[in-house]
Amino acid sequence: MPAEAGPRITIALDAMGGDHGPAEAIRAAAGLSLSRRDLGIVLVGDEPLLTRLLAEERYDPGTLSIRHAEGFVPQGEAAGSGLDARPRASILEAAAVVASGAADALVTAGSTGAAVHAAARRLGRIRGVRRAALAAVYPTERPHGPREDPFALLLDVGATLHCDARDLVTFAVLGAAYARAVSGNESPRVALLSNGAEPGKGPDEVVAAHGVLSRGGVCDFAGNVEGLDIPKGTVDVIVTSGFVGNVVLKMLEGVAELATDLARDAYARRFLWRLGLTMLGSGLRQLQELTDWSQYGGAPILGFEHPVIKAHGRSRAPAIANACKVAAKVARQHLPREVERALARVQDAIEGLPAKGRSAGPA
Amino acid sequence: MPAEAGPRITIALDAMGGDHGPAEAIRAAAGLSLSRRDLGIVLVGDEPLLTRLLAEERYDPGTLSIRHAEGFVPQGEAAGSGLDARPRASILEAAAVVASGAADALVTAGSTGAAVHAAARRLGRIRGVRRAALAAVYPTERPHGPREDPFALLLDVGATLHCDARDLVTFAVLGAAYARAVSGNESPRVALLSNGAEPGKGPDEVVAAHGVLSRGGVCDFAGNVEGLDIPKGTVDVIVTSGFVGNVVLKMLEGVAELATDLARDAYARRFLWRLGLTMLGSGLRQLQELTDWSQYGGAPILGFEHPVIKAHGRSRAPAIANACKVAAKVARQHLPREVERALARVQDAIEGLPAKGRSAGPA
Repeated sequence: MPAEAGPRITIALDAMGGDHGPAEAIRAAAGLSLSRRDLGIVLVGDEPLLTRLLAEERYDPGTLSIRHAEGFVPQGEAAGSGLDARPRASILEAAAVVASGAADALVTAGSTGAAVHAAARRLGRIRGVRRAALAAVYPTERPHGPREDPFALLLDVGATLHCDARDLVTFAVLGAAYARAVSGNESPRVALLSNGAEPGKGPDEVVAAHGVLSRGGVCDFAGNVEGLDIPKGTVDVIVTSGFVGNVVLKMLEGVAELATDLARDAYARRFLWRLGLTMLGSGLRQLQELTDWSQYGGAPILGFEHPVIKAHGRSRAPAIANACKVAAKVARQHLPREVERALARVQDAIEGLPAKGRSAGPA
Repeated sequence: MPAEAGPRITIALDAMGGDHGPAEAIRAAAGLSLSRRDLGIVLVGDEPLLTRLLAEERYDPGTLSIRHAEGFVPQGEAAGSGLDARPRASILEAAAVVASGAADALVTAGSTGAAVHAAARRLGRIRGVRRAALAAVYPTERPHGPREDPFALLLDVGATLHCDARDLVTFAVLGAAYARAVSGNESPRVALLSNGAEPGKGPDEVVAAHGVLSRGGVCDFAGNVEGLDIPKGTVDVIVTSGFVGNVVLKMLEGVAELATDLARDAYARRFLWRLGLTMLGSGLRQLQELTDWSQYGGAPILGFEHPVIKAHGRSRAPAIANACKVAAKVARQHLPREVERALARVQDAIEGLPAKGRSAGPA
């Protein structure tokens, strides 16, 4: 029964949006109520339905409550208009619970776009942060941090398609703070993704952000990295625009699927292949585990005063419970103040950026 | 002794820039002079050196000649200033040979940047093409075209970092024409890389380019593809900006290196692993072949009135010879007129694009 030190942390859990319906969220919450006394959960969604589902589980009523909401934004629907059409959607209500102070962090397995929009509408942004970032934990060849995690952090992966230099600097600070909070690595190395290692390489906004981050005082800045460094995992945090990050992340998923296909095809084939694969066992298993999102803590949406964790839509109860644990861990660590201080240190440098570097694309 | 039908094609071969020095280019040219009577080669570089190296080879003097040049731009040196400092550099002289009509196509294993700059300085651009694209042939899961090639074409991978909608439309046309010329696929499927399949997804320039390409008459347009589709190879040609293409291509190289590392590690380990790998033989060999650039025809630099093929810096003689064969094949097919006609068909649509879509970044 592991528990973090400190006061109880309460999670507002959007119970409606995941691919497998509310049963998985209910199961996750019920399990946590028994194993983690330091956590409280507010389940947000259709109250009659959630009450009925909860009645089928063993749970501790002392740490669980339900907050009614009406409807949710399905995957694939446009997030902004989807929320406009459902002002009491579960993700909006869950964000409101956090905003009211009744919970410390927000977790959802629903639509990513709806989560980003709902957070932007209901939660305050950290001072100095203009736009939010969606970050992704992805598997790498090299280990990271004191626990030798085979993962690195990539952001933004889709919340802000066009980033100017100020956004990239902000994301470097947000990524470093989050990596430190979840990995135990006191000084994560942060790099900008570019088309060459030299400081002058890349689009204007990357060059300008490089200039600001090189002055120090913001994060442990490792300069530019290239596409080659992504699977290698040369650094702990890679910063890029939402468009590039989204392409990169989906490419990683595509490569992982390829590895799985290769293994599956081989099993369907001849005996020697099967034998060969069995002998390779651990190596291929490692590759396949990379595609198993349920082991991950979910993707953080960074930039708000409270942690927001987006669990994968395919998440089952263990993955949702894991996302809640990560959210609680982050909530204990006062990241917003740390981010604020780091951004204040480079405020002048950011303000001094040429307009071209500050806004390379539409806002 | 295979030979293409038609009149003799002459290649201007920059003999100086590759990682392994001029000996590999000389060997490639000497071999081709004996095996391919339909090709002529002008070797461009330090004349005394090339003459001495050529004397060591068996070759047919009827199809080989040497053109003197002084110096070359080393890999890693800034291309523009590197060429300014060497007005008679081998890549500039080779481009001048093509521009003069004494050769039909340009091949180099030297610096990519120098090749792009030299082509821009010496060769005419196809009417309607404003900026050049560097394309890369990369390995995919699915086969392509009538010969079931396990490759697709990605462009731009670094010649034009910022692309506006007009550049993306142009690159779609250039990519389709090149894929058709080298693969025998009469109607290659072309897609824009974006962060979602829907027409409205992506940065403004991608959305605007989607609008123009959807009108038809330009290429067999398959809409948007995502990062996932890159390793799968869902389409034959993927179009994106030079910055994104560069990141993607280097990531693919990184993943291929990972596969090679995995295999090498396994060999150094225990017997069962080695045995397992041997049994997997063909599958892993396939993965490793993907990293072997010498099998590729090189990366075309598209947009000029004559074919320009950049062979990998690591190329040995067989890879350079292969690049020459590809260049000759393309030179026979009058791509510039085809590209011109396709661009003329959408000229009005391109001119009508909003300024935002036409120029999302600095020119």
